[in-house]
Amino acid sequence: MVAPEAADEGSWSAVNARVLVPWKSVSDALGDLGGLADGSLTVEVFTGDAPGPEDLGDVVFFTVPYDRPFSYEPVPRLSRVRVVQTLTAGYDRVAALLRGGVTLCTARGLHDSSTAEHALGLIIAAQRELPRWVRAQDEGRWEHAHTRSLADCRVLIVGYGSIGSALDARLRACEAETVRVARRARPDEQVFGVADLDALLPSADIVVLTTPLSAETRGLLDARRLALLPDGALVVNVGRGPVLDTSAILAETASGRLRAALDVTDPEPLPSGHPLWHSPETIITPHVAGGAAAFYPKATDFIVQQVRRFAAGEPLRNVVAEPMSGK
Amino acid sequence: MVAPEAADEGSWSAVNARVLVPWKSVSDALGDLGGLADGSLTVEVFTGDAPGPEDLGDVVFFTVPYDRPFSYEPVPRLSRVRVVQTLTAGYDRVAALLRGGVTLCTARGLHDSSTAEHALGLIIAAQRELPRWVRAQDEGRWEHAHTRSLADCRVLIVGYGSIGSALDARLRACEAETVRVARRARPDEQVFGVADLDALLPSADIVVLTTPLSAETRGLLDARRLALLPDGALVVNVGRGPVLDTSAILAETASGRLRAALDVTDPEPLPSGHPLWHSPETIITPHVAGGAAAFYPKATDFIVQQVRRFAAGEPLRNVVAEPMSGK
Repeated sequence: MVAPEAADEGSWSAVNARVLVPWKSVSDALGDLGGLADGSLTVEVFTGDAPGPEDLGDVVFFTVPYDRPFSYEPVPRLSRVRVVQTLTAGYDRVAALLRGGVTLCTARGLHDSSTAEHALGLIIAAQRELPRWVRAQDEGRWEHAHTRSLADCRVLIVGYGSIGSALDARLRACEAETVRVARRARPDEQVFGVADLDALLPSADIVVLTTPLSAETRGLLDARRLALLPDGALVVNVGRGPVLDTSAILAETASGRLRAALDVTDPEPLPSGHPLWHSPETIITPHVAGGAAAFYPKATDFIVQQVRRFAAGEPLRNVVAEPMSGK
Repeated sequence: MVAPEAADEGSWSAVNARVLVPWKSVSDALGDLGGLADGSLTVEVFTGDAPGPEDLGDVVFFTVPYDRPFSYEPVPRLSRVRVVQTLTAGYDRVAALLRGGVTLCTARGLHDSSTAEHALGLIIAAQRELPRWVRAQDEGRWEHAHTRSLADCRVLIVGYGSIGSALDARLRACEAETVRVARRARPDEQVFGVADLDALLPSADIVVLTTPLSAETRGLLDARRLALLPDGALVVNVGRGPVLDTSAILAETASGRLRAALDVTDPEPLPSGHPLWHSPETIITPHVAGGAAAFYPKATDFIVQQVRRFAAGEPLRNVVAEPMSGK
């Protein structure tokens, strides 16, 4: 417990300061909270579907709505905001709009379950040939065949962070063998370093990219490394498009040597007419891994807790250490 | 350890008795087994892709090939067979062809992993709308949307046997809540009885049928029970087609009230032109849950062990108690 952060300046306790949250279940949950009902702090919904209210001078806690058309519109007008909470793991876009001295918090971890679930779905869909059955169904055709499985496969998880760890648990429950790769080796957690990647690729049945984009990860899986994979291997990308070399995976799938399941692409959105759309044994989903329903209850709980911590003056979670020069 | 079963009659030790196995990896593995290389028992592959050899009089152990055109052809000609091993969990078809006194063994349990994996794939595909993305991909269209998740859903597993248990582990790893239902309640394992089904349906997000077909399970999920499910619920069938009432699920999906993901149908194969093919929010796969690659390594290990047990006179596994009147 630390001293209430906002009360340090006596700012919001003197006025009818406002907390903006992105959907009603958050304000409903906070409405039951006695500590916020003393009149000094009111909770209001800003969905991001339209521009924010004109007067934002009394907003002390602002949540950036997730993936809405006006999510960022109010940010430059938040003259007295103390805390800005994103619903994304990244924060570059909001940080660029903020003055110094604002505490910036992210949604790190809240998309893990959704992303890991989608990655698992892509893997099973590819192994069990679900797209083939969807197309056969559209033609009303019952056509039996034996397919690959996920069970007994060796899956390389490249970028072993919180999403990778969530995926790891799901894959092991499916009787797959997992091999973990992160930037640096962590032998205690059985995690290999990226320096070991070349040695690990030849024995992988499936490779999953879950890494963020950085100078180090851009083009990580390029033509040379893809060539190290065995015939028929599956390449899955739920991280960021440019981590996988588009020309290289296009060549490997067009020849039928490798298979792919991609939730992110480079370029993104993938333009109509791009050859990747129709490459054989390639599944493309339009960057939907992180945003499924699994995210919302977790995000609701998290924002409710963050606002409660803020109101009680407790330390916030997921604080970005140095979001901008002024901090 | 019991006395060698076949040696009791001194039958195969005196002649060059044969063991028929369905693929080469089994004979390869057994070829390394010293105990079988004494000349009294030879291992031979019968794939079921063509009729069996003319002379089957010295076959003492026969494996019925899995899902091949001539799987059952040799069975009536096995005049001295001691053990018949199926690669299916069921055995009605082969039992009808056998004389009395033959030990019949099934592949019970060997399809669990494959079936549970496919059921999980169907569930994630339905929740995350994979068929929609496949169709958008075919049109080269990048169209973003938020979808349901599996995480946080309550999933009713109806028929909590070995497949249900394998599915349960996978669903829990995906952060779903599972509710187990079997013929009779087993409170120690947190399993409800089928008598509780009506009370459990109204709070289920997803229902999965994994039951075999019997007089008790035929039509188990009928119009009355489907009506107890909440709007938007998903009905999954990887058991047997007639456990779910086809007219009833057709009506509920056609109206858009329920969703379905079916690996088995009634009738099966589903005829071209059947309205179920094109019912909204319905995924159909052509009875492929049990037969994926996950099955083969498990089946290879199992047959190798069964033949070794047979050769050593040890008790066999998965023996059907009374397959026919003569036994």
